[in-house]
Amino acid sequence: MRLEHQTSSSAQRARATGSPIPPPAADVVRIIPLGGVEEIGRNMTAVEVGNDIYILDCGFQFKEEETPGIDYILPNTGYLEERRDKIRGMFISHGHLDHIGGIPYVSDRIGNPTIYTRKLTGLMIKKRQEEFAGNAPVNIREVEKDESIKLGNHTIRFFGVTHTVPDSMGIIIETAWGDVVYTGDIKLDTENGVPTEEEFREFEVFRNRKVLCLLMDSTNVWQPGFSIPERTVYATLERIIHDSHGRLIIAMFASHLERLIRVVHFAEKFGKKVVIDGRSMRTNIEIAREIGLIKYKDDTVVAVENMASYPPEKLLILATGAQGDEFASLARIGNKSHKHIRLQPTDTIVLSSSVIPGNERAVQKLKDNLSRQGAHIITYYASDVHASGHGNREEAAWIHKQVKPKFFVPQHGYHYMLRVHADLAAEMGVPPQNIVIPDNGSVVEIVKGEKIVKTAHKAPSELRVVEGLTVSEISDVLMRDRKALGQEGFCVVVATVDRRSGRLHKSPDIISRGFVYLRDNKDLMDQTRLIIRKSVEQSMRNPRSADLDAAREDLADSVARFLLQRTMKRPIVIPVIVSV
Amino acid sequence: MRLEHQTSSSAQRARATGSPIPPPAADVVRIIPLGGVEEIGRNMTAVEVGNDIYILDCGFQFKEEETPGIDYILPNTGYLEERRDKIRGMFISHGHLDHIGGIPYVSDRIGNPTIYTRKLTGLMIKKRQEEFAGNAPVNIREVEKDESIKLGNHTIRFFGVTHTVPDSMGIIIETAWGDVVYTGDIKLDTENGVPTEEEFREFEVFRNRKVLCLLMDSTNVWQPGFSIPERTVYATLERIIHDSHGRLIIAMFASHLERLIRVVHFAEKFGKKVVIDGRSMRTNIEIAREIGLIKYKDDTVVAVENMASYPPEKLLILATGAQGDEFASLARIGNKSHKHIRLQPTDTIVLSSSVIPGNERAVQKLKDNLSRQGAHIITYYASDVHASGHGNREEAAWIHKQVKPKFFVPQHGYHYMLRVHADLAAEMGVPPQNIVIPDNGSVVEIVKGEKIVKTAHKAPSELRVVEGLTVSEISDVLMRDRKALGQEGFCVVVATVDRRSGRLHKSPDIISRGFVYLRDNKDLMDQTRLIIRKSVEQSMRNPRSADLDAAREDLADSVARFLLQRTMKRPIVIPVIVSV
Repeated sequence: MRLEHQTSSSAQRARATGSPIPPPAADVVRIIPLGGVEEIGRNMTAVEVGNDIYILDCGFQFKEEETPGIDYILPNTGYLEERRDKIRGMFISHGHLDHIGGIPYVSDRIGNPTIYTRKLTGLMIKKRQEEFAGNAPVNIREVEKDESIKLGNHTIRFFGVTHTVPDSMGIIIETAWGDVVYTGDIKLDTENGVPTEEEFREFEVFRNRKVLCLLMDSTNVWQPGFSIPERTVYATLERIIHDSHGRLIIAMFASHLERLIRVVHFAEKFGKKVVIDGRSMRTNIEIAREIGLIKYKDDTVVAVENMASYPPEKLLILATGAQGDEFASLARIGNKSHKHIRLQPTDTIVLSSSVIPGNERAVQKLKDNLSRQGAHIITYYASDVHASGHGNREEAAWIHKQVKPKFFVPQHGYHYMLRVHADLAAEMGVPPQNIVIPDNGSVVEIVKGEKIVKTAHKAPSELRVVEGLTVSEISDVLMRDRKALGQEGFCVVVATVDRRSGRLHKSPDIISRGFVYLRDNKDLMDQTRLIIRKSVEQSMRNPRSADLDAAREDLADSVARFLLQRTMKRPIVIPVIVSV
Repeated sequence: MRLEHQTSSSAQRARATGSPIPPPAADVVRIIPLGGVEEIGRNMTAVEVGNDIYILDCGFQFKEEETPGIDYILPNTGYLEERRDKIRGMFISHGHLDHIGGIPYVSDRIGNPTIYTRKLTGLMIKKRQEEFAGNAPVNIREVEKDESIKLGNHTIRFFGVTHTVPDSMGIIIETAWGDVVYTGDIKLDTENGVPTEEEFREFEVFRNRKVLCLLMDSTNVWQPGFSIPERTVYATLERIIHDSHGRLIIAMFASHLERLIRVVHFAEKFGKKVVIDGRSMRTNIEIAREIGLIKYKDDTVVAVENMASYPPEKLLILATGAQGDEFASLARIGNKSHKHIRLQPTDTIVLSSSVIPGNERAVQKLKDNLSRQGAHIITYYASDVHASGHGNREEAAWIHKQVKPKFFVPQHGYHYMLRVHADLAAEMGVPPQNIVIPDNGSVVEIVKGEKIVKTAHKAPSELRVVEGLTVSEISDVLMRDRKALGQEGFCVVVATVDRRSGRLHKSPDIISRGFVYLRDNKDLMDQTRLIIRKSVEQSMRNPRSADLDAAREDLADSVARFLLQRTMKRPIVIPVIVSV
């Protein structure tokens, strides 16, 4: 099936630049994805109707290859900052960092709106806030999944969704033209390709509703069929825990809280002690215990220091670091720097996770290190020890069938993923002209409930990054410099020149880092000195009228050209001319 | 099944350092993997018996995250360089770069041994050699798969293997104690999990042989079951080419020559014109045509400039760049910089390749760019348009059953892959004490045909890299500097100090690149200047006795400490103090 969904032309974009965005007309529902539609992560969408703005999620994204040296990427909240007084609330679908990570950095800038979310998510947000001591406390209003609340001129409802963390929910904004439905991250609990009764029950909420527009997770819609249901993973892990005759190490995301809870339960069931090795994991399990999502005897969990008192076959270690993170528990076990855990050939390690794109090398190294010490490794390639929290194509199709939206705006994913989801929506019956594939900052409007357009406006969408102690918009030059430095290094050349004669005072200095040969290659060093002398003395041949800036530029050019020709490398050359 | 394969302890390694490696005893078969057993790539193994050394393959590896800025990693041939006169020949299993890429860099250093290989591989090596104009010509002796040749005191035989390039072969070195068998890259042609008759026929060579030791590809043995046979891929591509009603772009590796040949054949069969867009692809197809591996009418292949004369449904474009390579054909199509090809929504793009670990982001970006222009994309996730050239677990099991080796040394793969392969070999009947998992440079010896040991010796195994115009051993400091520079940038501080008074002549200069804030942050800049002044004047308070080196060190320390505290960044600080 071939469709042409609406996309804004570059001409439209050009027109948009600089013009202020007027408030939406009275008959318009405006939808602005501020993050999460050109990448996986930093999910945040604003829905604006009349005088009310509702915010859906507030995540961040971990750094990319394209953004070396930065810590996180935030959604650009420029649009919201200029409209603080219209913000009625922030709705958080669940407690993962790509949905809550931006809160400590963003809340203050947009006027600290009240956060509406379910119990566990609220606690996860609060716990995280503790790491930002200087911040104003966040105002959280706990909601339940069947609740509805009135905020501004609209009613907001919620519904439960299946993901990998408890208390995940979708959000429904009731408008005069029908509902705007936001799923958050979503998969289905299925058995042999059929959703469970509970899924049918949750989606009954849509039976008699008129859904104007669906905003939905697109992460895995490009994968055919159904995802492995989490219940299959539980069954596999239960069997592994039951059968294990040696020490068992299970590594997974601390955020896969439902699975963590099950594993602790299975361990207790089979009389094993649990060691929780990883701060985030311990925190999450403590929160879950605090609100009764998990119950276990006090002596089920033992401290890693006391591990030695138990026979290996009685021990189950829950570890972080299945992605190869250098400082996590599993990496330290792998490189033998863990304080308390040394691997034995009778150990079994379960990597209960997939590999996040970009982490392949790190995970390979981890597996090499672990298997070098003789441990047996079980991965999701050979056994169902992991399932994604995002539904595949057939799950998405089922959800579309329940929700029956008039308009569709795919969310959460790279453009390609959104496009595949748009194609699916069209196959499920949404007319192609009722589908918009947005970019970050696209101002999408549904007019009179009749027509959807990607307007010529664009909300601010420059990359906002957290680096060290500051939040700033990213500089392309900076990123380009870092990439160059990381490949080619740099070279500082220092020439001290006599202001009267224009001659060099002494042999020029050359300092290089990250650039290959200079140190070991006296010849090249000497020739470079000659190039420096020649360039500077040429520039300074009339010392009185010499232009020092031009002299520096010429010096950098000459040296860079010479080094490229001799080494095929392009170090950044910094020319220092001191005139004395 | 739990096994402990032999690994050398660190104590053994320490002992090995520095001691020269004596020649093997008369009753020993020595096997030294020089590359390819701690990574995918740079495959090269030496087999030494008595006075003869036989070299198996000579590949290189593309750069890793761990080796920023370098071009290729070579096998370390130090061991061979010291024993040139014992080298009887170099045997090349097939024409992929991880098996032939090292030749132009290495041949000369090891005395330009004669290369024994099949016709196509020989041509590929020669073609590549043309890019190294300064090199001595290589001496290639063409062999056929059923041939046997006597070299030194041993007979060498060959056998055909299935991979993704024609003329792939395995190598058999006959020794007094049985054969050393090297598979090169290998998979099986199968139908419903049963190897074809031709596979049975090829492996008949082992029916009455006594195999002392098997050296075998381990790349995909960790994958369960059978790999998709290439015949399935051909069938899928044939159907897609037959059914396509618009322009079809098929992207794949130029090295997947068998598949390229098939695609050209299908195109001709269905009356389509073929545009070959990519130099490596064109070269490979020309070579294949030259030796009759492919036949097509002259007008089947049309130049990209003449494409417009044909209706879209008659066009099939073969493109390089399915891995997201920035300068390849497909990337240029994606970012609209291709001279002749602009995408239309009626175009279909087939990515006939998997994603090499490390390229995920680049491929995602490519798919985003392509789908943004409306083209329909078919990937191997949803359709059998790609299969690996390396066999899965059950294929490896079948091969082990045919070869029945007494000893086993897994090759080609990361340690974890080798380990999984070793476990499989043990399950297939090789006693665990007859298996050695080697590292690069391990000196493995089979004594009297009775016993295998990883000796305490280690052949040189430092990383040898190609960077720009030179080959050198890698410097850890250099790699560390590049990584730091790529994340944190650097900062040059220049202080001109009066040699008599020890006071600064003028306000110090600060030049930074890749480091965030300095330029935009006047406050920080001013404060840094103050820190510089304070540090230098403190160091120079007794100008006559001042130690300039110590002053520089103190200056760098003070500035680095201050910047870290204020920005949480750690730029490399270069202190320049000019005393005048």
